[in-house]
Amino acid sequence: MNPPGLDHLLTCLRFPSVSTDSTRRADTRACAEWLLAHLRSMGLSGALHETPGHPVVLVKNKHIPGRRTVLLYGHYDVQPAEPLAEWKTPAFEPTIRDGRIYCRGATDNKGQLMAHVQGLAETLAQHADLPVNLTLLFEGEEEIGSPNLKPFLQQHRDELKCDVVAISDTGMVAPGVGTFTYGLRGIACMEARIHGPAIDLHSGIFGGAIANPVTAAARLTATLHDDEGRVMIGGFYDGVRPVQDWERKAWNELGDGDAEMLELTGSPALFGEPGYTERERRWARPTAEVNGIGGGYQGEGSKTVIGREAFVKLSFRLVPDQHPDVILERAAAHLRAHLPKGVRLEIKPGHTGMPYIMDPHSPLGSAAQRALKKVFGDKTALIREGGSIPIVQAFKDVLHADTLLLGLALPDCQAHAPNENFPIDNFIAGVRLNQALLSELV
Amino acid sequence: MNPPGLDHLLTCLRFPSVSTDSTRRADTRACAEWLLAHLRSMGLSGALHETPGHPVVLVKNKHIPGRRTVLLYGHYDVQPAEPLAEWKTPAFEPTIRDGRIYCRGATDNKGQLMAHVQGLAETLAQHADLPVNLTLLFEGEEEIGSPNLKPFLQQHRDELKCDVVAISDTGMVAPGVGTFTYGLRGIACMEARIHGPAIDLHSGIFGGAIANPVTAAARLTATLHDDEGRVMIGGFYDGVRPVQDWERKAWNELGDGDAEMLELTGSPALFGEPGYTERERRWARPTAEVNGIGGGYQGEGSKTVIGREAFVKLSFRLVPDQHPDVILERAAAHLRAHLPKGVRLEIKPGHTGMPYIMDPHSPLGSAAQRALKKVFGDKTALIREGGSIPIVQAFKDVLHADTLLLGLALPDCQAHAPNENFPIDNFIAGVRLNQALLSELV
Repeated sequence: MNPPGLDHLLTCLRFPSVSTDSTRRADTRACAEWLLAHLRSMGLSGALHETPGHPVVLVKNKHIPGRRTVLLYGHYDVQPAEPLAEWKTPAFEPTIRDGRIYCRGATDNKGQLMAHVQGLAETLAQHADLPVNLTLLFEGEEEIGSPNLKPFLQQHRDELKCDVVAISDTGMVAPGVGTFTYGLRGIACMEARIHGPAIDLHSGIFGGAIANPVTAAARLTATLHDDEGRVMIGGFYDGVRPVQDWERKAWNELGDGDAEMLELTGSPALFGEPGYTERERRWARPTAEVNGIGGGYQGEGSKTVIGREAFVKLSFRLVPDQHPDVILERAAAHLRAHLPKGVRLEIKPGHTGMPYIMDPHSPLGSAAQRALKKVFGDKTALIREGGSIPIVQAFKDVLHADTLLLGLALPDCQAHAPNENFPIDNFIAGVRLNQALLSELV
Repeated sequence: MNPPGLDHLLTCLRFPSVSTDSTRRADTRACAEWLLAHLRSMGLSGALHETPGHPVVLVKNKHIPGRRTVLLYGHYDVQPAEPLAEWKTPAFEPTIRDGRIYCRGATDNKGQLMAHVQGLAETLAQHADLPVNLTLLFEGEEEIGSPNLKPFLQQHRDELKCDVVAISDTGMVAPGVGTFTYGLRGIACMEARIHGPAIDLHSGIFGGAIANPVTAAARLTATLHDDEGRVMIGGFYDGVRPVQDWERKAWNELGDGDAEMLELTGSPALFGEPGYTERERRWARPTAEVNGIGGGYQGEGSKTVIGREAFVKLSFRLVPDQHPDVILERAAAHLRAHLPKGVRLEIKPGHTGMPYIMDPHSPLGSAAQRALKKVFGDKTALIREGGSIPIVQAFKDVLHADTLLLGLALPDCQAHAPNENFPIDNFIAGVRLNQALLSELV
């Protein structure tokens, strides 16, 4: 017997709302429309708001003066599902196995978003109202860096006025351990394209006399790090805040991260910036990652060509007080300075997001931790996370509100990867957490 | 009005006989069957011979004792047509524009092969015989390194006994300039796969703590050359024969290769091993080319993943007296020695072929040059080529026969690339060349 609300989650998951893929535009919109209709059916009122990209779902209960106002944010868009061949069941057909729902978006973010929606549905069914003034803001562009949400916040500043923001789009350190995230890494994306000959060339006839753009792309990429994994872009580490003693202590108390990381990733070994634990590397240190590289022949067997171009997709994860615009500039300058001879470089800056940090010991932080204790018991983990939710900084800048990050994803939920999944137990806990949180925030 | 035999070439071109692509197996075989039927219809006799891969077409006229025996070799397989989007007309639908036939295989090798076939057809129609004992050997695995042809030569050594081999699968230095090729580069192919985590990972959550296989692949690839384009594999240049003075002189007399190379390739600049002209780099110096690289996200926009693996497709072009097996060993040792930390390396050796060189001033070489003069006029270019026809060395080893390379491809015929083409004039010249060559070899 499925728990209440699960069927709605399954419906939501079936929309292939891939925001980065222009062929999925109608599917993404359909997901927003479905969400709005569902929220209205619960007695809430609101509308879709158009943006230059995917629409925003904005819904409220009746706001009563004097009550605290809580903005609950989530996103209905998902990452691309590729490589499709690696999914055990179809990426957009939710399938339940061993107590987990497998589907693109199951954990990031539809499972967590719909747990909150179900919590609201149950409270509304029981009490016909919520304990706080609630604003639901669900966007469709989180996975592409929320390019239109900050302007939207600015345009609807009064309508969105709130005391605090709550988001469930982060992780739990382990099953059943309530986890409060007080910091996030920022992001800056970039694509470098390396152009060579006008056409693909026979590598026998022409090889030796012209630069190969694929070789050049590899050589250029290799200049980004030293052998130990430090980023070699000039000024990259400027302004990075040192890990605080209390953080180092709290994180070490979470146990041996190394063994868990090896098991979770299946990597042959851990590898990263010397002088830091694996948690410090992921939560408090910036990175330069190559998310994709391609050029030349991609098929079976061999094809003796010199490809005419190659691409390198880069993203930088940033920590306080790095600024993504500065990092993009410095990275571009580095690439230009290190470009191998005989090829041409094209740089396409991508989406960016500021890193975020709040004080977990503030009154609102403490309220969030009380809610976590109600649902998960006494032990609450205080962590930062390596991922990016750029909009958290926008809430701070535009609405002057801190954000409570109450994650429901487990380390093996495979966000962004094939066979993404979400435990049904976490969905149920999320429903309770929504109710506990709104009570604590009264 | 199409010249005689052109329709047969168009029929031959419509078979998508891509030997490296296992889904094209039936198409490749169908091309061989069509060729055999066509040759039989001309009055020649022969059969398809099965191999562990694609079949060999082996056909003869009636051999008369005392006549010279000529083995004419060609290949009916073609390179993959990808990237398909860059073809102006469909890759396997021959289309005539401005006096050229556009189709995959038009120049490499079906156009040149069918010119010879048409030459034979016309001689047979006129004289009911050929001036020499002729053996036609057409294989279907040249583009994958002829893995089964050397064993085939060994098994059919007596049946294939000949005085000389002739092949038209090389280039002309310019339209209308008869070109005799007396040297070819060898080849050694290899694929390196770099394995990291068991699954694609979220680069925010995990980035910084594990090695990224895509980054590692780029770093490893970057160790293959120095900034000037020299190959950095230990012992790579051992045994390379210096360019001879007469060669350097003959090649320089062909005119300014640099300008032609820039125009042909559309490259931003020439680039290659210091101390050599562009022709010397392509014809007499070995290379290490990256024919393909791939890993991580390949689609539109950005996807913040750490891919679980990456590949690098390499080929080495070799010159006398390098040996491909030695080069593959040294390359593998280099890759193992330079593997970045935290990833696993898998090496898949690919096909190989020996470099080849003959004396262009030998009696048979002189006969070939007389045939070229009959068709193209007095000026004959003596060149080497950068491409590889591994079977040429096998003819030397097994049949003890030299090979006459009488190419009909122009520099802009785009062999191995999109919009491959063959001028109808070259087809007509090839028909005449076949007749002149057999007369000179009597």
